[in-house]
Amino acid sequence: MKKEVAVGIDIGGTNTDFGIVDKEGNCISNSSIKTDKFKDAPAFVEALSEKIKLQIKLLKGEFRVKGVGVGAPNGNYFTGNIEFAPNLKWKGVIHLADLLGKRMKLPVVLTNDANAAAIGEMYYGAAKGMKHFIVITIGTGLGSGIVVNGELLYGHDGFAGELGHTIVYPEGRMCGCGRKGCLETYVSSTGIKRTVIEMLNNTNEPSILRNFNETTLTSKKIFSAAQKNDKIALDAFEFTGKILGMKLADAIAFSSPEAIILFGGLVKAGKYIFIPTKKYMEYYLLPIFRNKVKLLPSALKNENAAVLGAAALVWTHQKK
Amino acid sequence: MKKEVAVGIDIGGTNTDFGIVDKEGNCISNSSIKTDKFKDAPAFVEALSEKIKLQIKLLKGEFRVKGVGVGAPNGNYFTGNIEFAPNLKWKGVIHLADLLGKRMKLPVVLTNDANAAAIGEMYYGAAKGMKHFIVITIGTGLGSGIVVNGELLYGHDGFAGELGHTIVYPEGRMCGCGRKGCLETYVSSTGIKRTVIEMLNNTNEPSILRNFNETTLTSKKIFSAAQKNDKIALDAFEFTGKILGMKLADAIAFSSPEAIILFGGLVKAGKYIFIPTKKYMEYYLLPIFRNKVKLLPSALKNENAAVLGAAALVWTHQKK
Repeated sequence: MKKEVAVGIDIGGTNTDFGIVDKEGNCISNSSIKTDKFKDAPAFVEALSEKIKLQIKLLKGEFRVKGVGVGAPNGNYFTGNIEFAPNLKWKGVIHLADLLGKRMKLPVVLTNDANAAAIGEMYYGAAKGMKHFIVITIGTGLGSGIVVNGELLYGHDGFAGELGHTIVYPEGRMCGCGRKGCLETYVSSTGIKRTVIEMLNNTNEPSILRNFNETTLTSKKIFSAAQKNDKIALDAFEFTGKILGMKLADAIAFSSPEAIILFGGLVKAGKYIFIPTKKYMEYYLLPIFRNKVKLLPSALKNENAAVLGAAALVWTHQKK
Repeated sequence: MKKEVAVGIDIGGTNTDFGIVDKEGNCISNSSIKTDKFKDAPAFVEALSEKIKLQIKLLKGEFRVKGVGVGAPNGNYFTGNIEFAPNLKWKGVIHLADLLGKRMKLPVVLTNDANAAAIGEMYYGAAKGMKHFIVITIGTGLGSGIVVNGELLYGHDGFAGELGHTIVYPEGRMCGCGRKGCLETYVSSTGIKRTVIEMLNNTNEPSILRNFNETTLTSKKIFSAAQKNDKIALDAFEFTGKILGMKLADAIAFSSPEAIILFGGLVKAGKYIFIPTKKYMEYYLLPIFRNKVKLLPSALKNENAAVLGAAALVWTHQKK
């Protein structure tokens, strides 16, 4: 019998990565195209499917392609649409799964990036064998994918898992969503930057980070300053971990997961983010949950984690 | 074929109510015994099962008893045990489902009170036909039962749904759990009492409630003062609804339910609690969820709601 494989597609604002992945999480081949060079979604889908078909052809019939999984910003699992994604050029509602399915003549499953990451961790990563866990993706914003009884939690309308938009301080920082004090205004690469700017402004503490302005400061520079023991950088990571730990404690009280898995750019700061997050998570946890919930880094290879997650969607979908 | 019925038992600190309930939620017969007059759990179980057997006998074989459902404080669904319940006289871990099953020679399902209420709403109450909803029980404390995909969310260790212990203010009111600022220190019959005492202390506002002290003040008196347009009482309900609304917005971002159902003593205050809760819930909601999530009162008859919920556990259990 031919080995089964799935196509995984990760749509980002600039690039779209894709790959052909087997059930063990091996990426047999991969490639990418520029998302932002296409003036509309149909043109993008046409070019993308031609490139994927070429990749499939190169497999020379040695594998059987079972379907296509797509992780996309604002992707709705129930409708297969990308709905009003702020970081894509194409506006409004895009019927992506439908367009792609017609071109590829294969079943297409679509969800948002954080949910795809959660499925990827379950099939190939740190959540193998787990039935209850939460993946938190920390990049420009904060996304989350919640797994309950071995299945993604979509809720009544497909929008469950918006932990980045739970409220930390009702009168806190302005958020892109139009409200104030959301978790992602504190815990994200932009959040930690805002924290550093606030700390530089409120103290006289000397810091390497005083050499940068709002435009030139990045979370990578904050990480590298922390490695040089810069007090402002260390304090900013401590504060970020405190806020994240406190909200993870709330999330645990909600769904009682076995583990929480951190994924994405900011997580590369390793111990600088893990140590304070774990400390405050335990501190703020209800006693019955203490020292029971694992806090783990993603176990997906970072260069193609999103593609693996998207491909894994195909396997979950077939279970039903 | 004989009509199927289930026994529902609601164990409270003072009284234990029980009844025989059909699939339509009709309570065919009911009775109760004093929980606190028994020195240990085995003696309690013996007396309780004798009383239930007598009730079953009175049915004269016209019905078929399918099983026993129990709602109990700190009841763990996975183990069938009551674990360290602060308001029961019997300490430690009580193997209640096991003890009762042996006496009754029937399958016994046990869970905590809030989960039983959620199942009751799904089978007989305001959540009929819903797959995703949350029941919030507001009494001395605040409990919650979360239903996802038509099933109770128990999580990895059976303790999911502790919304009463999510944190509102990290440096806020001392909670019975040993931490500070938990939701139930603000939203519960004791929480609103603490709010009134704080408001009386911080203002010179005249109020009927100045006639009571910490011991004599009750949430019922606050309700009756609100009905007389007492400003402190009205402000206290507004504040309680604000905190509850804000945390419900967080819960919605988590699991995207179709509805939230409020149940329990404090909910009898009707519009005084519903109007501010709804207002602030919408205010604090992420825009994609606004005007979509229903906020409903329990539709279980209050005198035997907990018994109905416990009986309904038997039907859920049989689905598996």
